[in-house]
Amino acid sequence: MECYLDNCATTPVCQEAAAAVTDALLNNWGNPSSLYRKGMDAEELLQNARAAVAEKLSCRSEEVLFTSGGTEANNIAILGTAGAMKRCGNRVVISSIEHSSVEEAAKHLEQQGFDVVRLPVDADGKVPVQALYRAVNKNTILVSMMAVNNEVGSIQAVAEMRRAVKATGSPAVIHCDAVQAYGKLPGLRPSAMGVDLMSISAHKIHGPKGVGALYVRGGVRDGGVRVQARTFGGLQEKKLRPGTEPVPAIAGFGAAAKAMPDAARIYARMQGLHSYLLSGLSSIDGITVNSPEDGLPYIVNISTGVPSEPMMNFLSQRGIYVSSGSACAKGHKSHVLSRMGLAEPLLNSALRISFSHRTTTEELDCFLQGLEEGKKRIYTKR
Amino acid sequence: MECYLDNCATTPVCQEAAAAVTDALLNNWGNPSSLYRKGMDAEELLQNARAAVAEKLSCRSEEVLFTSGGTEANNIAILGTAGAMKRCGNRVVISSIEHSSVEEAAKHLEQQGFDVVRLPVDADGKVPVQALYRAVNKNTILVSMMAVNNEVGSIQAVAEMRRAVKATGSPAVIHCDAVQAYGKLPGLRPSAMGVDLMSISAHKIHGPKGVGALYVRGGVRDGGVRVQARTFGGLQEKKLRPGTEPVPAIAGFGAAAKAMPDAARIYARMQGLHSYLLSGLSSIDGITVNSPEDGLPYIVNISTGVPSEPMMNFLSQRGIYVSSGSACAKGHKSHVLSRMGLAEPLLNSALRISFSHRTTTEELDCFLQGLEEGKKRIYTKR
Repeated sequence: MECYLDNCATTPVCQEAAAAVTDALLNNWGNPSSLYRKGMDAEELLQNARAAVAEKLSCRSEEVLFTSGGTEANNIAILGTAGAMKRCGNRVVISSIEHSSVEEAAKHLEQQGFDVVRLPVDADGKVPVQALYRAVNKNTILVSMMAVNNEVGSIQAVAEMRRAVKATGSPAVIHCDAVQAYGKLPGLRPSAMGVDLMSISAHKIHGPKGVGALYVRGGVRDGGVRVQARTFGGLQEKKLRPGTEPVPAIAGFGAAAKAMPDAARIYARMQGLHSYLLSGLSSIDGITVNSPEDGLPYIVNISTGVPSEPMMNFLSQRGIYVSSGSACAKGHKSHVLSRMGLAEPLLNSALRISFSHRTTTEELDCFLQGLEEGKKRIYTKR
Repeated sequence: MECYLDNCATTPVCQEAAAAVTDALLNNWGNPSSLYRKGMDAEELLQNARAAVAEKLSCRSEEVLFTSGGTEANNIAILGTAGAMKRCGNRVVISSIEHSSVEEAAKHLEQQGFDVVRLPVDADGKVPVQALYRAVNKNTILVSMMAVNNEVGSIQAVAEMRRAVKATGSPAVIHCDAVQAYGKLPGLRPSAMGVDLMSISAHKIHGPKGVGALYVRGGVRDGGVRVQARTFGGLQEKKLRPGTEPVPAIAGFGAAAKAMPDAARIYARMQGLHSYLLSGLSSIDGITVNSPEDGLPYIVNISTGVPSEPMMNFLSQRGIYVSSGSACAKGHKSHVLSRMGLAEPLLNSALRISFSHRTTTEELDCFLQGLEEGKKRIYTKR
């Protein structure tokens, strides 16, 4: 039996998405910018996908701009906003546990002279609201916090960003990396949360790799949210992301968004899986749970007492796939756990188990059994 | 009968590419950065595709960096080089008939204070070599000319860029947009042409949309070609293009590159098609050929005497697909033809017919017949 429990790294492509990609490849391969029927058909496919993605954010179609993925969406949000807003101020506020695509983009801004403030997190991986209020000042042009942390599942008080900005009267744009939240966190609505820009990605919701989107409040237009393009060329995606659109991947994104079960409807079941896993873990000696109790139930980060890599290898040989942290960090030590104050031994033995709505208790049993055996075997070998 | 003669806008996806994409979606959906078998399998798929793409450029695998498409490859080349080289000089030399993704990126540099020189072209759409030599000076950090123009098919003297740079002793990086040349122009070898950076795209060679590549001479490493990343995040593509790789599209790119017939081997046949079309056109009254005689045989730009849009519409109703110029310009007037000195009536009635190796004489007959009828009907209606 194969147990794929690394759904935060990527997800298997659902049948609906695979069929949509294949159909676009074979039957709808025109260039959406071409002015004849074959081009218009491809353009229509794009617009249908846009509507499907938008519906799950409760936003309008024109507020969804397709990108090549979550990393690019985050980069446009961080660097594009800083470029557009640099005359209004110099401060950029992010959390200290952002994904590398936000953290590294912010580091790039720092090198250019921007004042980047990284908000601390508590032992639960959450930014204390007071820290946010203290950091945001009149000079702040951008505030960015992820909705759900990709390594531990902590949920940030995203709506507080708008309140903190309002309190100072700063012109700051508010961005939220919702790559791990889209389709999982009930009530993820940028407009209700006071968010101007939101990043999402297809391959975390059983869609294809190579496509994501940036929600831009009110769409890209004069007088709207100020975000500059980072790429220049044709007229595609309202010039925010020029270049021939990846029509097959976008069609797959739309199909995956449509096929996605309602996050609120399945939340109780996911909480059940989460409890099931925690209860199983509690009967294994020497396991520490690093994820907060009130985190997203889809993500459970633990320390096993056995170094992460041999444990991952042992498990993967049995067809059990989990990770030690962000796939984008490729095995490097987790900055998230370290910011949460975890001691070295816990850091070195961390494992992330991440669910999708397809995850079953049988898979969790399989993992628990593997983990228990791994702990015995790996220690015995040493 | 359907005649698709707009292969410079995009091409139908070949069976090999479609099969590779679908297989990756269904059977190889792991994250290439994941450290277990499922991840390594995806990584292997990437490396195989990289080797296939590299082979057709006669370069090494590690010199091929995947991007989301030709536009992004051009942007990384132009903006990434300017960023890396700005301490060495201020001048950027491009041709005046580049694709919008080079032209607009250069315009962005101009706004930042760079001295952008746009080389004129003659009536054949070719940059006079003397103009190139005059423009390149010690202060030049980047020279960029496309190998084959996307609208008229003129072939630039790409190898002269290196000679001009050598003559001045400038440190300039040399870039070539080869999106329309890859797979079509015999002898397209960046190393033999003295090119440091070369952009290519999958969907122009019967591959999927959403993937392209930038050739970087010697690969991305310290002391190599100086080009900065434009996107920040994970470790993918040697940090030149972070973000989870679009594995299915890359697999399709590799399959399309493998399936691509040898450009030199089929060149005579393509020249035959080209002559066939020209001879057919010569028997229709009032047709002007805008493409140079020594251009790439795959591209024929003409002026029909009938405004482009009604003619395109008339033809497309008969299943004949051609364009008025670059798809990325979405019907806007051609800057290429205008730089070549075409008068307004010729500009307004321009049509581009573009072949792939699949194009047949039957399709050209179909187009010629449609064109002749279009000329009669559209005039009669007025």
